[in-house]
Amino acid sequence: MSKLLPMAGARGAEASDPPFERIAIVGFGLIGASIALGVRRLWPSVLIVAVDRKDVIETAMRAHAADVGADDLVVAADVQLVVLAAPVLENIRLLAGLAAHVPGEAVVTDVGSTKRETVAAARALPERLTFVGGHPLAGAAVGGVEAARPDLFEGRPWILTPPSGAASPAQAAVSAFVEALGARVHLMTPEAHDSTVAYLSHLPQLAASALMHLVGERTGAEGLALAGRGLRDTTRLASSPPDIWRDINTSNADNIARAIDELVDILLRLRPGTGNSGDALEQTFQSAARWKRLLEGD
Amino acid sequence: MSKLLPMAGARGAEASDPPFERIAIVGFGLIGASIALGVRRLWPSVLIVAVDRKDVIETAMRAHAADVGADDLVVAADVQLVVLAAPVLENIRLLAGLAAHVPGEAVVTDVGSTKRETVAAARALPERLTFVGGHPLAGAAVGGVEAARPDLFEGRPWILTPPSGAASPAQAAVSAFVEALGARVHLMTPEAHDSTVAYLSHLPQLAASALMHLVGERTGAEGLALAGRGLRDTTRLASSPPDIWRDINTSNADNIARAIDELVDILLRLRPGTGNSGDALEQTFQSAARWKRLLEGD
Repeated sequence: MSKLLPMAGARGAEASDPPFERIAIVGFGLIGASIALGVRRLWPSVLIVAVDRKDVIETAMRAHAADVGADDLVVAADVQLVVLAAPVLENIRLLAGLAAHVPGEAVVTDVGSTKRETVAAARALPERLTFVGGHPLAGAAVGGVEAARPDLFEGRPWILTPPSGAASPAQAAVSAFVEALGARVHLMTPEAHDSTVAYLSHLPQLAASALMHLVGERTGAEGLALAGRGLRDTTRLASSPPDIWRDINTSNADNIARAIDELVDILLRLRPGTGNSGDALEQTFQSAARWKRLLEGD
Repeated sequence: MSKLLPMAGARGAEASDPPFERIAIVGFGLIGASIALGVRRLWPSVLIVAVDRKDVIETAMRAHAADVGADDLVVAADVQLVVLAAPVLENIRLLAGLAAHVPGEAVVTDVGSTKRETVAAARALPERLTFVGGHPLAGAAVGGVEAARPDLFEGRPWILTPPSGAASPAQAAVSAFVEALGARVHLMTPEAHDSTVAYLSHLPQLAASALMHLVGERTGAEGLALAGRGLRDTTRLASSPPDIWRDINTSNADNIARAIDELVDILLRLRPGTGNSGDALEQTFQSAARWKRLLEGD
């Protein structure tokens, strides 16, 4: 087994050497647990410390997804990488207490769906704790540790939002770590990230949940029995639980508000009886079909 | 081969006997051509007359999906069933000219996505032409005769909107016909149909196209390269061409306008910065997740 120092992976060690020997994953949901399973598969020697509620830790330990687990950051004292994988606002609260629990040098990253507020909060960390914001664009309709998979990140983008444009050893180590998990690293500013994901991820989620709620309320079980694949696909995201999304809506409020306003504007132009709704429909459908072909690589 | 009269299938003939021996399909797109292929597979002896543009007819004849084809209703003079499978407003125009081309008794049905205007237009038909409105809730992301499949209707609902509640021989024959194609018959009034499909089908389509248009315009090709399954599924319908949808929007204007207004209302309640958007998100997501479980039969 290799005995590398924390940054070694980034300094050109072989792909099979772990960039970090001891990692803590705080928040053992779908993403956190999938990282743990991926690490297990890649580097069986790496020590995985899990922090979450007691019942989640029990599930994680039974699945052999962690070596040490507790509902307190105290167990993370000696790690080289801290992965914050709780909902966004909880990650921000955790950042405030991190220095008190991790006395040595460490790299800190997160997997939250919004980046500006988390990156801003991380500026208060002492210098020995180097923060590299991250966001794996991977997920599943069903969350939780039970849905975790070691290959969840395979071929998926993982956006990193390092504080400055210049590459740092910490950024290189985190890049090596997530690439080993199968992800493709994309560098973006926190601002560009939050604006982009408002359209790519947050708006589709809100639209899917709004649509499913409305269609269910208006047609009932009898109506839904007639539904086809169109409604099913359009509302696939509507299984998402509200907990994560409340934080996302709060921490990306300006971008999401703008995106909602823009979607509402388009819907109202398509509304029959409004001005040239026929022309609006023609133009919107043609544009949508073009972007859809590009999205699907046709 | 059976030599049944038009209504025989409805009068208790064996499942293998065709309810109609000679049928015309006017409009040879995905639905029309799939009906033709289904009929071919079930009853090779049934004569299929195709009416559409010359180039479509050529494709249909090459695919052996029709026995006779032309771009004029004159070839439909002797059929026992006319299936109107053009876009809705074209079906309504076709109804006006049908009596002049079909001199004998025949059953007439359509497969349009809205029913009130078509059913109203059919009231002008002479008594020898019995109209039974229909709408198969089946489709594919890609339309056209090339995408046609004989099993397109297998297990899918096919709504019939007979003019009165009382069963007629024509309704029974059309029911037998579509059930033989694998569909499940649901009877509804034209009014209930149009209201229900505004939510089940029309609103999801408009939302998917509006969303794809907006996300494409705002994030561009570079942003779309980061998109995951969530956006892909939510926008699956966005490949739909505008032609059919312009007619649907026109002929179901009141229901679609109401559904758009209601969706806009929900989106604006979820908008961060608006009143209690956090509570609205909690309630909407929980309701959506419940309806989604019901939709998926979980």
